[in-house]
Amino acid sequence: MKLPRGLSEQDLCRRLDRFELETPSWGYADTGTRFGKFFQDAAAATIEEKLADAAAVHGVTGCCPRVALHVLWDFAAGTDPSAVAARAGALGLRIGSINPNVFQDQCYKLGSLTNRDAAVRGRALDHIIESIGLAQRTGSDVLSLWFADGTNYPGQGHIRQRKRWLAEALARVHAALPPGMAMLVEYKPFEPAFYHTDIADWGMAAAFARAAGPRARVLVDTGHHLPGCNIEHIVAFLIDEGMLGGFHLNDRKYADDDLTVGAIDPYQFFRVFQEIVLAEREMGRDLPIAYMIDQSESIKPKTEAMLETVVAAQEQFTRAMLVDHAAAAEARARDDVVMAERALKDAFAADVRPFLADYRAARGLPRDPLDAFRQSGYLARAAADRAPRKRNTTASYA
Amino acid sequence: MKLPRGLSEQDLCRRLDRFELETPSWGYADTGTRFGKFFQDAAAATIEEKLADAAAVHGVTGCCPRVALHVLWDFAAGTDPSAVAARAGALGLRIGSINPNVFQDQCYKLGSLTNRDAAVRGRALDHIIESIGLAQRTGSDVLSLWFADGTNYPGQGHIRQRKRWLAEALARVHAALPPGMAMLVEYKPFEPAFYHTDIADWGMAAAFARAAGPRARVLVDTGHHLPGCNIEHIVAFLIDEGMLGGFHLNDRKYADDDLTVGAIDPYQFFRVFQEIVLAEREMGRDLPIAYMIDQSESIKPKTEAMLETVVAAQEQFTRAMLVDHAAAAEARARDDVVMAERALKDAFAADVRPFLADYRAARGLPRDPLDAFRQSGYLARAAADRAPRKRNTTASYA
Amino acid sequence: MKLPRGLSEQDLCRRLDRFELETPSWGYADTGTRFGKFFQDAAAATIEEKLADAAAVHGVTGCCPRVALHVLWDFAAGTDPSAVAARAGALGLRIGSINPNVFQDQCYKLGSLTNRDAAVRGRALDHIIESIGLAQRTGSDVLSLWFADGTNYPGQGHIRQRKRWLAEALARVHAALPPGMAMLVEYKPFEPAFYHTDIADWGMAAAFARAAGPRARVLVDTGHHLPGCNIEHIVAFLIDEGMLGGFHLNDRKYADDDLTVGAIDPYQFFRVFQEIVLAEREMGRDLPIAYMIDQSESIKPKTEAMLETVVAAQEQFTRAMLVDHAAAAEARARDDVVMAERALKDAFAADVRPFLADYRAARGLPRDPLDAFRQSGYLARAAADRAPRKRNTTASYA
Amino acid sequence: MKLPRGLSEQDLCRRLDRFELETPSWGYADTGTRFGKFFQDAAAATIEEKLADAAAVHGVTGCCPRVALHVLWDFAAGTDPSAVAARAGALGLRIGSINPNVFQDQCYKLGSLTNRDAAVRGRALDHIIESIGLAQRTGSDVLSLWFADGTNYPGQGHIRQRKRWLAEALARVHAALPPGMAMLVEYKPFEPAFYHTDIADWGMAAAFARAAGPRARVLVDTGHHLPGCNIEHIVAFLIDEGMLGGFHLNDRKYADDDLTVGAIDPYQFFRVFQEIVLAEREMGRDLPIAYMIDQSESIKPKTEAMLETVVAAQEQFTRAMLVDHAAAAEARARDDVVMAERALKDAFAADVRPFLADYRAARGLPRDPLDAFRQSGYLARAAADRAPRKRNTTASYA
Repeated sequence: MKLPRGLSEQDLCRRLDRFELETPSWGYADTGTRFGKFFQDAAAATIEEKLADAAAVHGVTGCCPRVALHVLWDFAAGTDPSAVAARAGALGLRIGSINPNVFQDQCYKLGSLTNRDAAVRGRALDHIIESIGLAQRTGSDVLSLWFADGTNYPGQGHIRQRKRWLAEALARVHAALPPGMAMLVEYKPFEPAFYHTDIADWGMAAAFARAAGPRARVLVDTGHHLPGCNIEHIVAFLIDEGMLGGFHLNDRKYADDDLTVGAIDPYQFFRVFQEIVLAEREMGRDLPIAYMIDQSESIKPKTEAMLETVVAAQEQFTRAMLVDHAAAAEARARDDVVMAERALKDAFAADVRPFLADYRAARGLPRDPLDAFRQSGYLARAAADRAPRKRNTTASYA
Repeated sequence: MKLPRGLSEQDLCRRLDRFELETPSWGYADTGTRFGKFFQDAAAATIEEKLADAAAVHGVTGCCPRVALHVLWDFAAGTDPSAVAARAGALGLRIGSINPNVFQDQCYKLGSLTNRDAAVRGRALDHIIESIGLAQRTGSDVLSLWFADGTNYPGQGHIRQRKRWLAEALARVHAALPPGMAMLVEYKPFEPAFYHTDIADWGMAAAFARAAGPRARVLVDTGHHLPGCNIEHIVAFLIDEGMLGGFHLNDRKYADDDLTVGAIDPYQFFRVFQEIVLAEREMGRDLPIAYMIDQSESIKPKTEAMLETVVAAQEQFTRAMLVDHAAAAEARARDDVVMAERALKDAFAADVRPFLADYRAARGLPRDPLDAFRQSGYLARAAADRAPRKRNTTASYA
Repeated sequence: MKLPRGLSEQDLCRRLDRFELETPSWGYADTGTRFGKFFQDAAAATIEEKLADAAAVHGVTGCCPRVALHVLWDFAAGTDPSAVAARAGALGLRIGSINPNVFQDQCYKLGSLTNRDAAVRGRALDHIIESIGLAQRTGSDVLSLWFADGTNYPGQGHIRQRKRWLAEALARVHAALPPGMAMLVEYKPFEPAFYHTDIADWGMAAAFARAAGPRARVLVDTGHHLPGCNIEHIVAFLIDEGMLGGFHLNDRKYADDDLTVGAIDPYQFFRVFQEIVLAEREMGRDLPIAYMIDQSESIKPKTEAMLETVVAAQEQFTRAMLVDHAAAAEARARDDVVMAERALKDAFAADVRPFLADYRAARGLPRDPLDAFRQSGYLARAAADRAPRKRNTTASYA
Repeated sequence: MKLPRGLSEQDLCRRLDRFELETPSWGYADTGTRFGKFFQDAAAATIEEKLADAAAVHGVTGCCPRVALHVLWDFAAGTDPSAVAARAGALGLRIGSINPNVFQDQCYKLGSLTNRDAAVRGRALDHIIESIGLAQRTGSDVLSLWFADGTNYPGQGHIRQRKRWLAEALARVHAALPPGMAMLVEYKPFEPAFYHTDIADWGMAAAFARAAGPRARVLVDTGHHLPGCNIEHIVAFLIDEGMLGGFHLNDRKYADDDLTVGAIDPYQFFRVFQEIVLAEREMGRDLPIAYMIDQSESIKPKTEAMLETVVAAQEQFTRAMLVDHAAAAEARARDDVVMAERALKDAFAADVRPFLADYRAARGLPRDPLDAFRQSGYLARAAADRAPRKRNTTASYA
């Protein structure tokens, strides 16, 4: 593993120490496609089980101390948020982003903050503002907003009117943020809306965020782009505009496939991280980016899939740190496209696994997190424990 | 509405009389996305309700006498298939295609006919062969096969081994077909599998169909293609190869959005039908194509959405019949691209609604099926009837 | 043809009178693909021929009084811009947008305003600023900017550095605009750059335009989007932000195919125009949008292809004016998705050709512009005239 | 670098010895986009220069002994094919595939073998059959067929008629093949045709090849697929059908970008090669696949770009050989998706550069071909030599 000039392995380790990945509570639960769910005995169903899984992931990786929570799925009526935070704390975890849910209830069939019915818009806004309170009580400092809002048919909605409703509501959400809390606005081109989605791309998300206020920034879900989109370009652009708030990490081949990171296009993650590393080196400081995982796939065991993504993200971030940016800059200065590109290719070709194993060992962590997790027997115990309690219902597509 | 040389309105009417659209039982039931279902009070839940809805659609359109059934959803254990057929008959309907379901049960998590476990493969094959028996008892003559089989990750499956398992099983299915029954093989590029789908495109479907036997042909779902794919080219190619078996009609903008026909790209449906009309005129006979609707969208009232698709398909088929193929051929013969294209554009620009209204009236049908359906009050009655009986469960994404 | 409540045919005619389409000089010249050019005897080679063709198009359509010019292709060294304007005036034309060219010279191989070489950046900026002067002398009030700038390989360029160079230069261009002149910033996802394009989407174009100054706005080329992109959503969004400057109209199926309007997806053009008509009705005034044609296709005779696009755009704009927005709004107010959509579908289904023929006749124009053009014999005369003078060179791909 | 059980480094080396990559003569010449060509001083213009470049590439890599020739570009009228072969032989090269050109001449504007004009079809067929003779005289055993044939507009062509013309002609081409010569049929979804391309996908190519005769097989250009297409699935399918003839290797992000291999998606090349290695291990023999490079990009120095692709292909093929297929099979046998995938991921994560450097050194080749090439000063000499002779013409887009 060749280091770029002027950097030591210590430098890499120190940056890795600060490269934390937030895991999502819903990533430990059974999910599926519209054709049904394939249930796993060991999948988590309660907030307690989700936190236990998150702690298990953090235990073998050491870099996942934060857990994202989903308001509707994790806080049953009457749940005390501070109790959830306390439980997390007891497991060595903190609460990360809080994710309101304004897409599941039947009233949101035709939109939440963009619904033509003021009552529904109000209900959605209330839920989001309550989520802020809930975030405060859990110690979270990030409100993460994804809207399924959109239309399935031309003419179904008044696009500009919906835009204004959404902008007004987001400004009110921003106004309700306590000091120190950020709000992230996510975009997605389609699904579950199939004609137009109110926040369809980064440009719309940035416009809404700017209009909302200074603590609103854009959330880039790596699976939420049209085919061919250059994601790292968007990331670099947002960094330069001071508008990059965070990521939802997952991989995809077709649409929002929500696969484990690096399963399909590892080089793309490397390139995304490379833009960040380059900017950080130029600025001399870490960028305040929330690295959050958001994957949903029902074939792999949920906890193992999470571990895979954590390790894959660490590997690509490490490779990104190996890029010799000075060499790339020198090549560019002489219009040497081949060598400018080679600075990236060489870093990507490096095998960083031995270095990362050493890095982990030096921190008292297992050299191979997945292997350690398998040997721990956690999954079998969880399956034995949880399977009997799991509901028997099967979801049918039609 | 300008008719092509040598054709009378009577000619058009006669062909329209033979242009039947099969509606799917599951198109009357609640469906959704992976993020949840939005339930409709009037959506059908039982086979009786589905048949009633299909009869209502046929009643106002006169061109939907056949209903496709889904084995798992429509035939509860102990259901007598001939009773279902009798009930359909009493409503003026016939049973169309029979659709086995080898994707919903938990055992199919890693494949059905391509599962590495011979027991699962056997179970899937048994179900399909039982479906043939069931088809016979309902008077159906089409076995329609869609497989969700595929993998989510590189390396998860052995692609060629799975191909051989699938080919062997399909040959056995074909061998079990009674005389007069066709089997259709559907393809789809992705979803619910996100890395590779065992029957991913028309070329694979045709290869499997050819290997299975002479009564196997390809089923083209208009929503099952990668972005930009020229569907009418595939249709023309399959016609020329004698391998086009039928359609699953629905529209889409992004992926398999399953919207109502013509909602996004009406000209594409026109072009698909144009290839068929052209071939039929040259051959002097109707092509044996099963026109089946397969849409799934939870915003519009199910029955109305079905009516819209029926009417849209009729309109585009009618426009396709207006193409002056002789004029197009003459233009091509003098390399006049502009006028060759204009033959199509002119037909598409025609307003065929008045003609179709007259056509319907002459057959004792309402001039505007949707309007008549609305005035019938059917939907409100169905809602009043069915809502109380509907289950209260809500599906949660995670 | 059913008119929406409260609108007369006169209203439509008056708006059509103000719906002008600018044709591009380069749309009359031979173009091709990277595999070569197919030459047309009648294609224009000189500015005089291009203006003559534009005048012929305007002569039979009456709605194309403006011609876009390309600085490098239309103004040979020593050309007097005011002479060009005078010649146009003598033909009944005005000069529309002026298009600098900073992509063809060999020095722009690695970028123009984003080149790492300050000398090249300076040369590109000088050319653009000179183009402003040239625009003034021709009476043009629109500077239209498209940049081929981008990279083919990861690492080839420093994305954020290039962004800043581009922003700085565009601010200087804006500062050089005379009063009354607008500048339009075009975006494109790829081609000729195949890894990243510096202005890749509307969001980037809007950011650059905003940073440049108040008279900079976004130019939407209908062929410059990734697969599936909802263009009318972008159009509506830009209208609401006050950032929509104009269009480059052309159709496409795959990439930037530059086909005649409506050849592939006529309904999409209808939907784009529908958003504009809706906004204009709400605002009670025309939006200041430059409707410019930019197509490039070497199979159809150039002038005829231009006529087709003009007529197709007129037809879709007329259909868009037929949308009963009040009915759509009422349907939306009762959550009636079917009828809200139907307001659009009904307008699109109308055959507007007879109305447009009457409209043209009332203005002394031929009822069918293409037919009249064919009967005029213009093309044959142009071919006879121009073929002998045309250069004999053939471009070879390799 | 961990070897799979049962394989030695010697085994890998022996297979690498047989992994030859054919380079294309046109890959050493100036090419461009439709917006123009950026000329390189060192780019080859004559067949002598192209062969010299190919020899230089072979000299430092040792695995590129074959050169593909393009009939129109490499054999000027009067050229003696055997003299070309002799010259190649003197440089240590052999002639690889012969590529007829039926897309550049003006007569092919509306198609070659699919042209409605029998005279044009005849001319195209004659050219291809002459190319066979030419292939024989150069010692080539592969006729490689790509057709630009297609249409830009719906209605422009009669799709099924064109299909039949093409099939008939290809059968005649096959009949003209001498013993031992194969013909490869390439497919491409679009460009330069923008509505329909007569051989649009692998399914069509396979149908044409099958109809032509037993020595016709499919040529997979890695850049000729719609977005999201799973190329390795097609490769595996074609292998199983005995229809995979060869590759045109190049990388892409959007359309047929023709970038150097691995520049955008290195993991995809690994997966493609993995399917081949797996099949070869199962069959116990090499598959008769022609690995040909076909890239076209005007930013990088042509010879260096070729070297990069050769090295990248070697690296990914080597990684593919590292996959522990037994471990993957065992994991699949216990439904362990995570470990089945990991067999691939682990092989891809390996750094094979040191092994390949040793491999080359053991064969008397430079450890780093690109570095050795740069140190040789070849490019500077070629530039000095060729620049003065290069034509001064610049291609203008319009």
